[in-house]
Parts: sequence; structure tokens; C-alpha cells
Amino acid sequence: MTSAPQLERIERDSIGPVNIPAAAYYGPQTARGIANFPISGIAISHFPNFIRSLAYVKMAAARANARLGDLDSATADVICQVCEEIIAGKHLAEFPLDVFQGGAGTSTNMNINEVIANRGLEIMGRPRGRYDELHPNNDVNLAQSTNDVYPTAIRLAILLSHGGLQRALDQLASELEAKAEQFAGIIKLGRTQLQDAVPMTLGQEFQAFATTLREDVARLGEIGAFFQEVNLGGTAIGTGINTNADYQVEAVAELRAICGLPIVAAGNLIEACWDTGAFVLFSGMLKRTATKLSKICNDLRLLSSGPRGGLNEINLPALQPGSSIMPGKVNPVVPEVVNQVAFQIIGYDLTVTLASEAGQLQLNVMEPVIAYNILHSLELLTNAVDVLRTKCVTGITANAETCRKHLEASTAVATALTPSIGYERSAELAKEVLASGKTIREVLAEHPDLSEDLLAQTADPHMLTRPTRSRAAS
Amino acid sequence: MTSAPQLERIERDSIGPVNIPAAAYYGPQTARGIANFPISGIAISHFPNFIRSLAYVKMAAARANARLGDLDSATADVICQVCEEIIAGKHLAEFPLDVFQGGAGTSTNMNINEVIANRGLEIMGRPRGRYDELHPNNDVNLAQSTNDVYPTAIRLAILLSHGGLQRALDQLASELEAKAEQFAGIIKLGRTQLQDAVPMTLGQEFQAFATTLREDVARLGEIGAFFQEVNLGGTAIGTGINTNADYQVEAVAELRAICGLPIVAAGNLIEACWDTGAFVLFSGMLKRTATKLSKICNDLRLLSSGPRGGLNEINLPALQPGSSIMPGKVNPVVPEVVNQVAFQIIGYDLTVTLASEAGQLQLNVMEPVIAYNILHSLELLTNAVDVLRTKCVTGITANAETCRKHLEASTAVATALTPSIGYERSAELAKEVLASGKTIREVLAEHPDLSEDLLAQTADPHMLTRPTRSRAAS
Amino acid sequence: MTSAPQLERIERDSIGPVNIPAAAYYGPQTARGIANFPISGIAISHFPNFIRSLAYVKMAAARANARLGDLDSATADVICQVCEEIIAGKHLAEFPLDVFQGGAGTSTNMNINEVIANRGLEIMGRPRGRYDELHPNNDVNLAQSTNDVYPTAIRLAILLSHGGLQRALDQLASELEAKAEQFAGIIKLGRTQLQDAVPMTLGQEFQAFATTLREDVARLGEIGAFFQEVNLGGTAIGTGINTNADYQVEAVAELRAICGLPIVAAGNLIEACWDTGAFVLFSGMLKRTATKLSKICNDLRLLSSGPRGGLNEINLPALQPGSSIMPGKVNPVVPEVVNQVAFQIIGYDLTVTLASEAGQLQLNVMEPVIAYNILHSLELLTNAVDVLRTKCVTGITANAETCRKHLEASTAVATALTPSIGYERSAELAKEVLASGKTIREVLAEHPDLSEDLLAQTADPHMLTRPTRSRAAS
Amino acid sequence: MTSAPQLERIERDSIGPVNIPAAAYYGPQTARGIANFPISGIAISHFPNFIRSLAYVKMAAARANARLGDLDSATADVICQVCEEIIAGKHLAEFPLDVFQGGAGTSTNMNINEVIANRGLEIMGRPRGRYDELHPNNDVNLAQSTNDVYPTAIRLAILLSHGGLQRALDQLASELEAKAEQFAGIIKLGRTQLQDAVPMTLGQEFQAFATTLREDVARLGEIGAFFQEVNLGGTAIGTGINTNADYQVEAVAELRAICGLPIVAAGNLIEACWDTGAFVLFSGMLKRTATKLSKICNDLRLLSSGPRGGLNEINLPALQPGSSIMPGKVNPVVPEVVNQVAFQIIGYDLTVTLASEAGQLQLNVMEPVIAYNILHSLELLTNAVDVLRTKCVTGITANAETCRKHLEASTAVATALTPSIGYERSAELAKEVLASGKTIREVLAEHPDLSEDLLAQTADPHMLTRPTRSRAAS
Repeated sequence: MTSAPQLERIERDSIGPVNIPAAAYYGPQTARGIANFPISGIAISHFPNFIRSLAYVKMAAARANARLGDLDSATADVICQVCEEIIAGKHLAEFPLDVFQGGAGTSTNMNINEVIANRGLEIMGRPRGRYDELHPNNDVNLAQSTNDVYPTAIRLAILLSHGGLQRALDQLASELEAKAEQFAGIIKLGRTQLQDAVPMTLGQEFQAFATTLREDVARLGEIGAFFQEVNLGGTAIGTGINTNADYQVEAVAELRAICGLPIVAAGNLIEACWDTGAFVLFSGMLKRTATKLSKICNDLRLLSSGPRGGLNEINLPALQPGSSIMPGKVNPVVPEVVNQVAFQIIGYDLTVTLASEAGQLQLNVMEPVIAYNILHSLELLTNAVDVLRTKCVTGITANAETCRKHLEASTAVATALTPSIGYERSAELAKEVLASGKTIREVLAEHPDLSEDLLAQTADPHMLTRPTRSRAAS
Repeated sequence: MTSAPQLERIERDSIGPVNIPAAAYYGPQTARGIANFPISGIAISHFPNFIRSLAYVKMAAARANARLGDLDSATADVICQVCEEIIAGKHLAEFPLDVFQGGAGTSTNMNINEVIANRGLEIMGRPRGRYDELHPNNDVNLAQSTNDVYPTAIRLAILLSHGGLQRALDQLASELEAKAEQFAGIIKLGRTQLQDAVPMTLGQEFQAFATTLREDVARLGEIGAFFQEVNLGGTAIGTGINTNADYQVEAVAELRAICGLPIVAAGNLIEACWDTGAFVLFSGMLKRTATKLSKICNDLRLLSSGPRGGLNEINLPALQPGSSIMPGKVNPVVPEVVNQVAFQIIGYDLTVTLASEAGQLQLNVMEPVIAYNILHSLELLTNAVDVLRTKCVTGITANAETCRKHLEASTAVATALTPSIGYERSAELAKEVLASGKTIREVLAEHPDLSEDLLAQTADPHMLTRPTRSRAAS
Repeated sequence: MTSAPQLERIERDSIGPVNIPAAAYYGPQTARGIANFPISGIAISHFPNFIRSLAYVKMAAARANARLGDLDSATADVICQVCEEIIAGKHLAEFPLDVFQGGAGTSTNMNINEVIANRGLEIMGRPRGRYDELHPNNDVNLAQSTNDVYPTAIRLAILLSHGGLQRALDQLASELEAKAEQFAGIIKLGRTQLQDAVPMTLGQEFQAFATTLREDVARLGEIGAFFQEVNLGGTAIGTGINTNADYQVEAVAELRAICGLPIVAAGNLIEACWDTGAFVLFSGMLKRTATKLSKICNDLRLLSSGPRGGLNEINLPALQPGSSIMPGKVNPVVPEVVNQVAFQIIGYDLTVTLASEAGQLQLNVMEPVIAYNILHSLELLTNAVDVLRTKCVTGITANAETCRKHLEASTAVATALTPSIGYERSAELAKEVLASGKTIREVLAEHPDLSEDLLAQTADPHMLTRPTRSRAAS
Repeated sequence: MTSAPQLERIERDSIGPVNIPAAAYYGPQTARGIANFPISGIAISHFPNFIRSLAYVKMAAARANARLGDLDSATADVICQVCEEIIAGKHLAEFPLDVFQGGAGTSTNMNINEVIANRGLEIMGRPRGRYDELHPNNDVNLAQSTNDVYPTAIRLAILLSHGGLQRALDQLASELEAKAEQFAGIIKLGRTQLQDAVPMTLGQEFQAFATTLREDVARLGEIGAFFQEVNLGGTAIGTGINTNADYQVEAVAELRAICGLPIVAAGNLIEACWDTGAFVLFSGMLKRTATKLSKICNDLRLLSSGPRGGLNEINLPALQPGSSIMPGKVNPVVPEVVNQVAFQIIGYDLTVTLASEAGQLQLNVMEPVIAYNILHSLELLTNAVDVLRTKCVTGITANAETCRKHLEASTAVATALTPSIGYERSAELAKEVLASGKTIREVLAEHPDLSEDLLAQTADPHMLTRPTRSRAAS
């Protein structure tokens, strides 16, 4: 190759000289980070909300520093201008660092410091690298440390992303409720332990799915809100070294204003510097949502099993040919992918937990892997929930006839007899049904000692889908 | 052995005859459960609060049934009398079932049904087994199913137990705060990534421990409160089959009154019958507390490492000779056992998650293993936190001299110079310190170009443990 | 109570005086351990093979020391006599320490040192506590450290226990093979993704269960064998400090002779002192066995689901009434408890992993929790496998008629048509079957363009349970 | 944009018409898969060895089919030609499917079927979509099912990738051995439970790291070898439906020949169709390697902690400025990233376990997520190990003086006195040392009752790094 040497520029940091692509806004420390961490093949730019959040923080700091007189306002303006570009989605390719990195996010923090400095210099009409005029550390990072900037940005990124998951879950719950209404009149056999139990409606079954997800929308909101507490202003270890005494309050206020979220400062910045408890709790909550989705998808797959050798009570929409060898086969591919996403989220939660436990003394250096796992969890879950809604639930239809057939063939209504004839006698009748192959109504009719009244009580299985025993004493 | 045959009695259930120890209050289904599940060697009576909770539920049901006229009041009175005995801690040995069991807790529910029936018969002056006079199913279990009784009892048991953990954490936090106050004047080196960072006080370090645990006391309270929602009255699958239309409201009200906790009915009993989300979230919260405790214990072990070849900034009390071979060795045995408890809690959380995900259709049959893991987690954590407080934290002393020595030998104050002389120049000075073996104050003194003012700024490291830069513009 | 003070004796160790039950063989350090670690309510004596293993090690050390002239033979004889008592199962109650403990097992090691010393003194006609005549450290622990004794004993305990699991799995596999033979002629529908697929026999289905478990018997043997490598003789950190140059070889040889297992010394005793890789790998293997058992139990529950609203292809034996409210219900309680055991094993594996990762420098201090989790896993799994065999698999019966009915109603044989008529045409026929409710044979008969030959090819579904396409070219 | 409609082509499958980029080799089912699974943003082409493996399998099948006369040789030749292109790394962009997908890999199998068909048609001079002349199912997929092709390809991909991890680990072990040799003469303090223990050399410490990793190279080889067993030829459920009776043997032989690996057929193809035990065991092994690497990195971070307020026994190479705020700080960024990779691997192992447990009946539909987690684990681990070697271990230097200082200040040699003067007396001396601040040699000199001989025994700490007690009796 004849790719000319002028395509690179050379800069120096405290370790020595570094080669950098000539056109890159990023600088020497980003270049070192790229070289030092060729790990996963997944770049931090995979998460635009995270890059955006870094820019929010840098902008808030610049404004606070300017207001306090620590940064001249022209410099602050340039910094803010670049931040606005980044917030608008520009320069994403300037963030090629691997999501896995040592240094507790220092490379990432320096990445945005350098991009702001060099793009700022460009705006100022100066060449890249003239850091004496706009310095990544002394100006862009003024009154900041990776140890307060980086965790704050992760928290912001989660706040910016988890609303999407709530929205997706809420829409899915609504779709399930629509189905519940649609299926309200379909009577069927309820099952416990995969064994025939007692009557219910298919609508009740779908409503329970909706209910359980709506609870999680609420819980995600409550638990996500803990990310509104940030440690910005604590700098290196939470003592606020190198900050103006008023900086923390100003910077947090600016951040609140810029991103429009109710951001507040943590009460104890030293604790907040190493504490990762909010990540663990939120990740545990994502895990809960994942287990619920997995359970629902397991049920959808069970209820749609067959069509001839399974329960076949509902039909999932056919999205793609089910098999490369078995013609006509249609598989529940969407629930299956949601199950797999759930398993991934549970694994990710474990990684978050391990990383959290590994914090030492004044910092948790494992935050990059925490950030990756939670941000990817949010992406996976949100996508999976949307796919589940749009490509599966919305198209589900019921096989009312099969539902009724299963119920009628079962001994489900025997339970309803126990208040009248006791547990043992009911059990004997149930055994007789199963041994004879008759329905329970046929068997009841053969026992003249059992009152017609009893038969009548069990005639309408819909009556058995709610509490209906009359008050005995009355 | 000549242990006589009269020591057993024989009873029948719908499967056939069963041998039972003659004196046992429990009956045939308990005996079957004992025979069917010889798994772990740990009995459900390991958790007295759980047995107590079952009695609360049975008592509430009996009272509600009596009030509704479905159970004659004499029978209800006998049932309630036995429940009160159980609540008072009697009959614990009558609950020998293994904590691992199939059947979604049916064996456990029948265990208490049978104990109440036979002990009730005894009170009534009747022999064991005369179930026609007091029936485990028809009377004791009236209007109930394992599927609402058992989950309700697990939730109650957690509510009865987790206050103990909150109390223990709160006391530990107070003890840590006392230490924080005691150590407020001890200046030391803060560390990030195990590398020398910037100054702080030992008091700040301990206060952060207290802060992080106090947060968990609050979170445990909030998240534990979800267990106040129960599915009592939903019976088999949440539809309330076989219950009087007023039963659920009455039974929950009775339960609330009996146990003095603000118990409420779940909004959707069908969902509540299979949903185990509250367990997953709470278990995830216990996991978070565990990771925090583990992190704190890791720090205590680091800070007390040595005494000669480690940090040696604090001393943990000597509880036992540290080694069978190394005389004079004293080890941090209490933090070590807390670490191990934390690892167990994290493993238990995974088991809870797996069990939750495995729910199918109208029930989660894996609740016994969920109950075991959460109840044992609470026991382990509460004990570990109490041991950590009483046998370790309370006796911690500080080595103020060592703390100061580490700080003075380090380049920690170089950070404070950067606002004045910039990042690069500060870095050069730091390198000079490390290369020369001199202190930073000695090196600064050799640079006449650096103002005395600068030297003064760094003279008192206590000043560097809080934000102190003056407002530049003023 | 008037329990007299003479029931305790007082001894001193390097920390100070300690009260001990007067009759106890254990001494001051055990008493400290009991007081320091009131954590889980589960004693180390829960695992008799572990106590036995400690005695094996002590006996081997005593013999080696005597042979090398470091311990007089009379003392060695007394030590060995006590060890033999312990190996025979005596004195189990003398090991009341909690399975959770700090100190890397020092309390446990001192527990057996003290029991041997005091019981030995008793044999010698001397009172408890006369350690100048038989010393727990100087004599019983001679040339040993907790750090080589304790890991060696854990490994031995696993070696003594995991044969039981292999035996149980092997017997279960044999029972499954017996069922496979019994069910060899029962033709049924194979299912992928819970959807109807292609024909197979019920015998093939059960044979696959047997095959997968037999593989694990082999793997458990191979991976368990790594525990034959021990670090006995490495003492405190693997350098063998305080041992005679010939001690390690002698001690390992004695251990091999005493316990009859092919014990060998680890190649690098320093690594072996902290390495817990064998535990992680073996625990991972137990996890694999657990996932296989869980999958098999899930299948058994699916195949026996119904009886009227499920697959109902097999019947599991009825072990206990299935419900406290639903008469006649019989549940798959044994597979359910095996599922739960599997979830526990997976959680335990995580705890083992966390503990392993937490090793630091020359020791892994978390071995007590590793030991508990692996030894309890072995107990749980062995019991669960035996229960699964004796109480479930052995009594399984098949519903051949239902099996055949599912197959005939399905489009399973359409796959067999594709080599002749292609994927698209076959898919059209399958759709026609499902839409019409006819069988595929009926539909085929309505298409005169399809050769009779084709119809014949699909007539015997047994032919479709093995590769049967003839060689096209010949 | 004016991107013209002719940029797409329309094809039909059994579900209906599908739009496809006109130039794409892939066809309708791939297009459906892309639309159905917009989940993670990570494409299957992220793993070139996996795409390559699919081509190996297709080539083997084509050759076997041709040899058996089921596929005409011209068609087989075209298929093989395309496979060779893919194996050479071409067409990677034609595999854009998400790594998360439902359908048990059917989309992936159809992806390569379609790419081969359309690229083959191009070679034949025919337009894309003319499947009557080269059919994705009838020709490319002949005698195959996703259910045997896909698992076989995953296994091949692991076999092709895990050698790289073994190579990386082996090289790292060699580098650690080189360090062990370099540091063989550096005497230092061994530590257990972070407390001063007994003497060792730094060389012994590094040799232990090498030893533990070499073991894993061996174990990875043994456990990886289980992937040589494949289920190719079993087709849909392992019964071999639609295969020529000789096909399986021929296809496996071809595969063995093509890829040069000792591939064999599984003994029970029905079990092999759903069994994922090899993945669980291998993933568990990767987890073990991860825990070992994490432990080693924890040690490297501890040993290099400081430089002034930590152990500072070794120096890690400075790779990048350590802090955006603290000048001169250098952090252990490489060990930190390896820790994080380890946490990810442990999380991935959990996901693999969950997916494995979720297999049902004749198939495990969760294999896509298993494949992703194991293949990414291999990538992460291999990269992390290489980075650890090249950017960290190779540049480690020792601070011999600090090492010696820690040892001399400690009571480490007191252990060596116990064989002569007993445990209690040694403990008293150790206490005296710690209380006085003197060295143990100074204290010993003050006790004239202790023989000079004793002092001499402890004079050379190097003597205490191996078993050196002389035989007492001689």
C-alpha cells in the first residue's frame, strides 16, 4: 500500500509520542486506549445515548466553570458548541474505543475531552493538537475527574434509555389487554403443574400477562429514578478536590437544565464515587422483567403447541417457514428469541453483580463492563418487547373449540363439588371420570343420589371462573 | 430393635394406606411427603417464622369462614386455638418435611392442615384420624388451596424476618458512623484502582460504609413492602373457585388483624397465583446488600493487611489464633465469613431467578425452593451483619501514624497543583517525586519558580479533603 | 435453670481464656469458632465424609511423622487410634462448627486437632487440656498447616461422595434403558420447538435420556479424578516450611494407603495451595448434570401433562394426592423436586465460582463455602436422582393409543415426501391437511397425480424412525 | 433519496412474497430473518469461523449426496465452489442476521442455503432466484435439517477458535515462566488472608501463575475435544429421516476430510439432537479459566499497588496516563480489563446454562444464544490473554528491595521456630516483635536462652522457601 504518512499526525502525552489518524478529532489518549483494548469488537459508539450523555456532562461543567469565573466564556462557548453537535448525533465515529477497557473509563473521558478540544480548535480556526489554546484536561476536563464524569454519564445514558423500555412494555401490556378483552368469552381449562385444574377464560389468562408487565413498568420507573442521583462534582474520590466550593451545586443545576431530567447530587459524594448499588438493583429489576417475559413466552409456546400433538389453544402468526426440512412447519420464533434475550439479561445481571462486588476502596474500576451490560440489556429488552408485540401478540388468535373441548373432557368441575359432597367423594367421582373416559357430567348423571341441584351448579363453567359460593348461612 | 408396632398408626388418603408415627399430629399426606422428599436434610421447621405464618393464614381463613357461616364457630375456635399454639412456637417438631419438595407446597399445606386437625381432635377429646369430626381438607383447608395459602405464608414469613435484617444493618451503620466520628481527624491517602490518589480522612472512609448500608435499609423496606400483597382467597388458580363471594375480603382483613401487618389483596389474583416477581426483586435487593457488604469487608481486609507487609492502616480485633502453623498470626476471620455469606446470597439469588422463570401457566410450582433460598438468605445475612458489627467493627482501631506516612510519601497533593500550573507540569513534578524518593514538599522546595503560595496551598492535607478552590474571578 | 458451673472447663489459647463444655473433646479454638460463626445453623458434621476425611489426613500425617522420627510412635499410635474412631463414625457431635467460617478452615482443622488431642489424652488416662502431653498443634498438627490439611480433606470428601452420585446416575440410566426397551414398539410424534415434527418411538425418547446421563457418569469420573491431586505437605503456602524433606512423599503415600484411593501430590504445591480450579470445573460438571436432569424432568412433565388437556403420552406414578382443593388431581411431584434441586445446584455453582475468583495471593480463604456448596450439591443430586428413579421412572407407563393418535393427526410424514415431490409441494399438502382437518393419508389419496408408491412410502411410520431412503443411483 | 425500486427483487416462500436487495445473494428467508430479529445489533458475521463452519458442513453434505447419487455431480460442484469461496472469507457481508434469533438457527441455515444457491446460480450464469435450477432446500439442504447442520457448525466453529485461546494461554504461561526465572532470586513475604505469612520467592509466585494456566491449556484441549462429536446426518430429530442409509457415515467422513479435524458421529443421534451438555461443560471450563485469570490479575494489582501507599513489590508497565485529574498516576489498566472480561465470561456461562436447561423434547431451540455466548467468550478471552501478555506481563519489573524489606519487618520466620520451641513460645516471640517494632532477629538476640543455633536456622530466608527440616531421628 502507498497510503501516505501524512495521513497520521503525532502527538505527545505524559507517556510519550502517539500516532493518530490525521483527520481524527480524538487525540493521543484515545489512540492509546484503542491500542490497549482490542477486546470485544464492540465500540462505545454502539450506544449513542451514552456518547450524548458524556456531552451533556461536559457542557454542564463548562457552563458551571464559566459562571464561577474559572473558565473564560469564549472557551466555554466553544466547548458547549461542540457538545451540542455531539448531542445532535454528530461525531459518533470519533468514539471507537472498545466497550471493554481498564482505567475505570479514563480512556472514554479523555476521548470526549480530546474530541471536544480538537473539534473546538477547528471551530476556533486552529489546528488539531494546539492544546495550549484549548486543553483536553485543563479546559475541557476542568474541575472534573473521570471518576465523577463517567459514572454520571452512565447514569444519564440509562435514564435516557430506560423510558424506551417502559414505553415498549406499556404498549405490549396494552396489546395483551386488547387480547384479553377479545378472548374474554372463551372458556378453557386452567392448569397447575401442567395438570388439568379448574375453569378460567382465555381472557383472564391474557389479562394476567398484561397485569404482570404493567407492574414492571411501575417498578422500572421507581428503581430507574435512583439514577437521578449523580456524583458530579466529587472529582477523584468524592472529596471534590480541585473544585470551586460552589462548583458542584452549579454543575448539577446546569446538568439538570441541559438534559431536562430531575438530576440531583448524591448526599455522600465519597460513597457515590464507589457505590454501584443502583446498577445492581436496576439490573436485578431488568432480570425480573426478563423472567416474566420468558415465563409469558413459555406459556405462549405451550398454548400454541401442536397443532395436532399439542395444546393448540391459540395460534401465533406465521412469520417464516419453520424448517429447512419439514414442510408446512411454523414455529414460535418470536417467543423463542425473547426467551434467549431473557437468558442473556440474566447472564448480564450476573456480570453487573460481579463487577459491583469488585469495587475497592474509593472507586469501582469495573464500571465500563457494568455500563456495557446494562445498556445492552436495555437495547435487547426493548427490541425484544417490541418484536414480541408487533410480530407476535398482535396476531394471536384463539381456538375456542379446542379450549372448550379440553375443559369438558377434564374433571375440572369436580372441585366445585367439594363444598357440597366433600373432598373424598369428589375424588372418587374424578377417578371414575378418568377411568371411564366419560365426561364428568355423564358420570354425575349416573349417580342418582347426587342432587340435580349439584349438576346444575356445575353446568355453566363460566360461573366457576369467579367466587360464586353463596353465603351458607343465609 | 424391638420397637413395637403399636408406635405407628395407619391412615388412608385417596392414594391408599399410610403408616404414621402414632403420636404425631401430622397425618397421611405429611407422611407421604416425608417419604417422597428425602432430599436435603433441612426441614421446613428450620424457619419458625414460616411455620408461624402458615398458622396465621389458617387462623384467618377459619375466622372468615366462621363469620360467613361456612364453618361452625366451635370448629373454628378449635382451629384457632391450635393456630395460637403454633404461633407461640409449639409443635415445631411436627413439621419435619424437607425444604425441597414437589407439589408446589401441597405437602406443607397438608402438614399444617393435618397438625391442626389432629391436635384439634385431641383438644376435642377425640383420637387422631377422626377426620369426619375435624377434617384437614373440608374444615381446616375450607375455601383454601395450597396455591393461595402457601405463597401467602411465604410472603408473611419474609415480612416477619426482614425487619431483623433491617435492624441489623441499621445497627451496623450506626457502629460505622461511630467509627467515622472517632476517625474524623485521621488524615490518609485515598486510593483509586489500588493506586495512590488524593487525601481523605479515615472518618470519611467509614462514613461512606455507613451511608451505603443505610440506603439499603431504606430500599429493603420499600421492596419488602411488596410482600404485603397476597393472593389469599384466589384458591386454586386465582379465580376464587369454591370461595364465598365475600370470603377473600374477610380472610385478608382477618389476616391483617391477626398478624398486625398491613396486608392487602393483590389486584389480580390470577396473576398473583403464578407471579413470583416480588421474590425476584427482593432477592435481587438482598444480592445488592450482599455485594455492598462484601465490598466493605474486602476494604476492611485490605486496610488491615500486613501488619508489616500490607497497608496496616487499621486493626481488626483478634478473635482467635489465626493459624495452626504460624504463631502470632491473626486473621480477618469475620470479614472473611461475611464475604462467603455474600457469595452464598448471590448464588441463592440465581436459584430464585431460575425458579421464578420456570413458572408455567397458572402456577409457579417451584415456590418451595424460592422460599428456602430467600428465608435462608435472610437468616445468613442477618447473622453475618450482627457478627460483623459485634465481633469486628466495634473493635476496630486506627493506625494514624501509618495513615499519615502513606499520604506524605505519595504524590497525592500534586493533583491540587494542576489548577495553578496545569496538568503536564504537575505530572512532571509527580514523576520527579517518585524517581527521587523525596516527598513532594521537598521537591516543590527545590523549584524556586513555584511560588511559596503554591507550597502553602498544599501544606494542610486536611484542606484537600473538601472542595476549597476559591472563586477565581473574585 | 441450675445448670452447674462445673459443666464447663476453662482453657487458654494465645488470645486468652475460653469456656468449654466440660465433657467436650474439642477445645478452646473450636469453642471460639462456635462463638465467632453463628451463621447458618448447619454444622460441618452434616457431612460425615468430610469429618472422616479430616481423620484420614491426620492419621496419614501422624504415621509419616512417626516414620521420619519426628513424632514418637506411642503418640502416633494414640492419634491413629482416635482417627480410626472418627473414621468409624464416632464423635460426630464433636464437630458442631458452622459450615460458614472465616479463617480458611483453621477452626475446622483445630477442631479435629483438639478432638484428637483430648480424646487421645482420655485414652492415655489423662484429663482434657493436658496439651503438654498431647498437643493439638505441636503433635497432632505436626508438619501440617490448615492450608494443606483442609483442602486435602475437602478433596477426599468429594472423592468419597461422588461415587454415590455416579452410582445413582448409572442406576437411573439403567432404569431409563429398561423403559426404552419396554417402549420400543410405541410409535409417536417427535416434537421440535413444541411443534409437531416427525415420527419416532417412545423407546427412542427414553433411550436418549439414558444416553445423556451415562455420558455424565463418565465425565464425573474423569473430572472427579482431579481431586486425587492434593497439596498435603505444602503446609502454610506450599513451600513446605516446617516439614522434613521427606515428609510430603511419606504423608501422601500413607494417605493413599489409608483411604485406598490413588492420591498423588500436586506438581506445584505453591499453586495448589491457592488454586481452586478443580472445584470450579467439578462444580460446573455438576451443573451440567443438573441441567440435563432438569431437561429430562421438564420432558416427563410435558409428556405426562393433562390428562385431558395435555399431551398425556405417559403416566407418572401417583405418589400423593395432588391438591388440597382439587380432588383426584395427581401431580408430577418428583420431577418437580428434581427441577428445584437442579436450580439449587446451578446457584451453588455460582457461589463456588465467586469463592474461587476471590482467592488472593498464596491462599484461597473462601474454601469453606466452596466445600459446603459442593458437598451439599452432591448430597442433593444423589438423593434427587435416587428419588427420581425409585419413585418415578420405574413406575412410568405409556399411553400407546394417545401416542399413535397424535402422530396420525399430524403432518409429520409430509417431510418424507420432499425427496420425491420437493419442499414446496410438500408444504402445500401439509397446509391442506391442517386446513381440512383430514389426515395426511386421506389428503394424499385425493391427489391422483401422487403415485401410490408415495403413499406406500409413508404407510409405516416405523420406517420413518430411521434413515431409509434407498440409494438413488443404484 | 431517489434510490430506485429496481434495487430490490421480490421472491416468494411458503409464507408469501418478500423484498430482497437486488444484489444480495441471500434470499427470502434470510430477508424474513432480518426483519423478524432486529435485536442486538450484532450480526452472525461477527464470527467468521462460524460462517466458515457452515460452509464446511454444506460442502460435506454436497459431496456425500453426490457420491451416493442423490445429487448430480455438476450441481454438487457448484455448491462446493461457493463453499470454498465462503471458507476463503468471501461473502461475509451476506450474513447480516442478528446473533439472536428464534427458530433454532433455521434462519442461519437458510441464509447459507440461499447464498450458496444464488451465488451458485450466478456461477451457472443464471439469475438470482431461479431455484428450480439450484434450490436452497431441495439441493443445497438435501438430506439435511437445521437441526443437524446448525449444531454441527457451532461445534466446528468452537473447534476452529479454541486453539487460539490455548495458544494465547500457552504463550502467557511461557512469559510468566520467563518472569519466574528472572525473579527466582528475589526473596519476599508470602501472604495468606492478606496477612504476613512465611517466606517465598517472587519467582515461585510467578511460576504458580504459569502452572495454573498450563493446566487450563490441557483441560481446554480435553474438554474441547468433545465438540468433535457431531450429529450431522440425524436431520430433524436424530432419526435420520430423509437420508440415505449410508449418508451419515459419508457426510461425516467428508467433513472430517474437508476441515482436517477428527470429527466423528455421535453415538446416539436422537440424544445429540437436543443435548447441549458439551456446551455447558466447555463454558464451565472457560469460566474456570476466567476465574484464574481474574485471580492472577487481582494479585498483579495488589502486588503493584501504591507506589507509596501500597505493596509496591512489582511494577506494571505504564501504558497510558492514569487519570484525567491526577497527574503522574499510572493505573493497572490491563489487569483491570482482564478482570472485566472474566466477569463477562462468568455471566456468559450462566446464559449458556439457562439456554441449555431450556431444551425441550427433541431439540434445544436456544442454541443461537449458546453459540453467541461461547463464541464471544472465546474472542474476549483470547484477546484479553494476548493483551495481558504483550502489554503487561512482559514488561513487569520487580522491586527487590521492597520485597526484602517487607519480609524482614515481619514475623514470618517465627513459624520456623515452632519445631524447636513449640507453638506457644513462638507466638509469644511474634507478639513481642509486633509490639516492639523490632525485627524478629533483634528480638531473638535478646533472648539468651534461645540457642544461637536457632538464630542461625532462620538467618537465610531462602532456606525457608522449601522443606528443609532435617530428619530428627538421624
